[in-house]
Amino acid sequence: MYKVDLNCDMGESFGFYQLGNDEEMMQYISSANIACGFHAGDPHVMRKTVELAKAYGVGIGAHPGFPDLLGFGRRHMRCTPDEIRDYILYQIGALREFAAWSGTKLQHCKPHGALFMMAMEDEQIACAILEGLSALSNELIVFALNGSAFEEAGRKMGMPIAREVYADREHTADGSIVMTRKGPIITDKGEMAKRVVRMVTKGRVRTPDGEDAHIFADTICIHGDTPGAVELVKEIRSAFEQASITVTPVREILT
Amino acid sequence: MYKVDLNCDMGESFGFYQLGNDEEMMQYISSANIACGFHAGDPHVMRKTVELAKAYGVGIGAHPGFPDLLGFGRRHMRCTPDEIRDYILYQIGALREFAAWSGTKLQHCKPHGALFMMAMEDEQIACAILEGLSALSNELIVFALNGSAFEEAGRKMGMPIAREVYADREHTADGSIVMTRKGPIITDKGEMAKRVVRMVTKGRVRTPDGEDAHIFADTICIHGDTPGAVELVKEIRSAFEQASITVTPVREILT
Amino acid sequence: MYKVDLNCDMGESFGFYQLGNDEEMMQYISSANIACGFHAGDPHVMRKTVELAKAYGVGIGAHPGFPDLLGFGRRHMRCTPDEIRDYILYQIGALREFAAWSGTKLQHCKPHGALFMMAMEDEQIACAILEGLSALSNELIVFALNGSAFEEAGRKMGMPIAREVYADREHTADGSIVMTRKGPIITDKGEMAKRVVRMVTKGRVRTPDGEDAHIFADTICIHGDTPGAVELVKEIRSAFEQASITVTPVREILT
Amino acid sequence: MYKVDLNCDMGESFGFYQLGNDEEMMQYISSANIACGFHAGDPHVMRKTVELAKAYGVGIGAHPGFPDLLGFGRRHMRCTPDEIRDYILYQIGALREFAAWSGTKLQHCKPHGALFMMAMEDEQIACAILEGLSALSNELIVFALNGSAFEEAGRKMGMPIAREVYADREHTADGSIVMTRKGPIITDKGEMAKRVVRMVTKGRVRTPDGEDAHIFADTICIHGDTPGAVELVKEIRSAFEQASITVTPVREILT
Repeated sequence: MYKVDLNCDMGESFGFYQLGNDEEMMQYISSANIACGFHAGDPHVMRKTVELAKAYGVGIGAHPGFPDLLGFGRRHMRCTPDEIRDYILYQIGALREFAAWSGTKLQHCKPHGALFMMAMEDEQIACAILEGLSALSNELIVFALNGSAFEEAGRKMGMPIAREVYADREHTADGSIVMTRKGPIITDKGEMAKRVVRMVTKGRVRTPDGEDAHIFADTICIHGDTPGAVELVKEIRSAFEQASITVTPVREILT
Repeated sequence: MYKVDLNCDMGESFGFYQLGNDEEMMQYISSANIACGFHAGDPHVMRKTVELAKAYGVGIGAHPGFPDLLGFGRRHMRCTPDEIRDYILYQIGALREFAAWSGTKLQHCKPHGALFMMAMEDEQIACAILEGLSALSNELIVFALNGSAFEEAGRKMGMPIAREVYADREHTADGSIVMTRKGPIITDKGEMAKRVVRMVTKGRVRTPDGEDAHIFADTICIHGDTPGAVELVKEIRSAFEQASITVTPVREILT
Repeated sequence: MYKVDLNCDMGESFGFYQLGNDEEMMQYISSANIACGFHAGDPHVMRKTVELAKAYGVGIGAHPGFPDLLGFGRRHMRCTPDEIRDYILYQIGALREFAAWSGTKLQHCKPHGALFMMAMEDEQIACAILEGLSALSNELIVFALNGSAFEEAGRKMGMPIAREVYADREHTADGSIVMTRKGPIITDKGEMAKRVVRMVTKGRVRTPDGEDAHIFADTICIHGDTPGAVELVKEIRSAFEQASITVTPVREILT
Repeated sequence: MYKVDLNCDMGESFGFYQLGNDEEMMQYISSANIACGFHAGDPHVMRKTVELAKAYGVGIGAHPGFPDLLGFGRRHMRCTPDEIRDYILYQIGALREFAAWSGTKLQHCKPHGALFMMAMEDEQIACAILEGLSALSNELIVFALNGSAFEEAGRKMGMPIAREVYADREHTADGSIVMTRKGPIITDKGEMAKRVVRMVTKGRVRTPDGEDAHIFADTICIHGDTPGAVELVKEIRSAFEQASITVTPVREILT
């Protein structure tokens, strides 16, 4: 029997703007990365999303981003490590309050967009973020790409790390994902499902260079804003059933 | 022997913009109302201000406002009670995280500007805010004007209320403060000091109508952005010394 | 033969957030009220929308709002007349630059949401806005409700006013629209089409009180974000054809 | 007889936040770079600053920046050239409207902070900005560092370019300025005054490497937020008088 977590970005609406299909996706995932009002989300949306996640038994995670609503947090901003740590503490605190209001707790933290990519590659930024996260407790599980600076720094600090893989992105032999939008993004649902089953059960993935690389899949990211995201996650769940893979919040994977 | 709390708005800088004289004021006050990034303040400023308050033994309070940086939170915005409660939970959570990061705790909450005035007068908004504040615990002390809808609602909900008076504003017989900028604002430091001493020791204040009204002064607000604020607070402290009034964080007043 | 203008709010997307069906609606309307980056819209969206309007021969109008993206400009903010005039000049200037970039010109201005409602009712605000609009030239046509403070002030200043009616809202005898969301909003497309035809050809509308009131319809507002907006505008266009009503940009109505 | 322009960033206040000493500086400079509400400034401040510049006969320039108030536009943001051009058109249009309102015209454009540095170095961004600026007319004078990608692209497009030098920053032989805050920044007022006199009259500057490099000084930037900025500009004006250098708006330098 295998176990894996399915995570998805959630709560990305803002004011009058609706984004994603949160209520439907909640039924198929086990962990929600909830936007915290910087790159997306607002206080009202955050509260609703936390309540929704709780109702579906989905693990609640902070999804902090750069203060760039206009760019949806996807543009690199040259902030100092100190600024970044403070932005993350602020956003986590805000979400933590809504979790407490709903009688529940934060499970994990996954930085968003450009901040995520910078945290994976830049050791100084990785350490600043992790220093912030570990200040209070070692309870928050941190999502990191296989072999990233973020994973490495987190392990040194003794923090609980969940290694994350992507259903619809290529992975290189060093664990990075191929982010270029014109690059080799996987689009066939069946192929995606097979790939993730293989990552979970064999710990292996075929890279764009044709190599068969090792990979650890504690949690699988589904992009909720891809067209057909609901169909994809259903396909994956169905492939998991056949392969005896149980989907469960990441806190139950790491223990 | 009398005891009273001296509070002041703090952490109102934003990015490159400096406001107020926080480090100097911290030496004379006992409670700091720290802006939370909506009407003023930013994550970096919030962390620094919390650390500063802790260093000076000053009680740390959340000072949440409307999402209106351009108007410094002083413009009425027609938000729903639900929206307002969510804005407050968000801001308190953010500040709470910085308090935890600094190894300390929140002592109180005082809404800012237009939000404060609306909370004092509008029962629905008062209840929405208090419902948010009381959700987790009854620990946060709430600042309210004497006889306001906010005080009344808070007492009904069994929350710890500190009655607040102003050094440089007139009070009416029903406890309201006279906010019109052209109205009777007190400017003479000596007179201000005498007034607050009388409020603390006799529980009385002279209204603009010439009435001698009852008033409870658990905490006294000093406006940090008034020119000469530091001189005023020194004058008040000196008058307190002569009148045997001890200045102490509000949590030690209410117990 | 009758002539009337059909206007619709456009360019209300923001960054990653898509709103409305601008390209499709452009085919049926004759004037576009383009959001200017305060309550909705961003520089990129504004440029695209201006280019789209130009391509379809649709009159280009500024649709300035309150600086409240979170509330979509629908919440009353207690700003001074001076602040409001400056907000409007700023937004109109920004849109005017994109019009110039596209080799075209602004035709009209219609304030948005709460700002629109305040301009209709508050003479001071109406005058501040109109003073701003008339500063450069008397070229911009101003949209106003029948009999509003805005219409009256505009006429006194000699500005070109287009009287606006709504397809899906009730009108009272004094020309106001009934804005309460739970109130009598018309939902049947056929009925809406009949109503607007009658307003255009007879200058009359049935009020919620059963009165048959006079009304002038220079321009008819279609809400682009109502579900079925495209079907509604098609229905109206088809009813217009039968009634020999030509749809044409408002600048050709007023001359 | 020599002529040169003295420029300074202006209108950088925002809402309740005051920055700089605009009214005093206006008396000594000949061109004002006015913030346009993205990195600093707001509609109200923009109008006031335009009126002030007009009153002192100071040339009015747009000073557009990144949409990053929190970082004062000093942080690199990875925007596309298209986005940047649209941000600049938006900001220039807004300022142009206030100039028209005040019965005056824009003289020049100088991008701010990180956007300025990117425009100087990145040809694609330089071209996108210049394409935007040249769309309407070739009237706006563009400020550029000696030998920058921005100067080069502007000359190719036949636009009026003013070469800018800094009073308090070192210049390298290729015209760049040394921006590192810990680097060789000049602080002695007398030395600064001598340097700029030499740049204007001899067209030469001593680089940090000890080289004596050619440099063209059409306009000299004074940093208004440096402590002692007013004293510095007075010192420079006094040195100019002795060296028979007239200070005059840049439009009169280029003709």
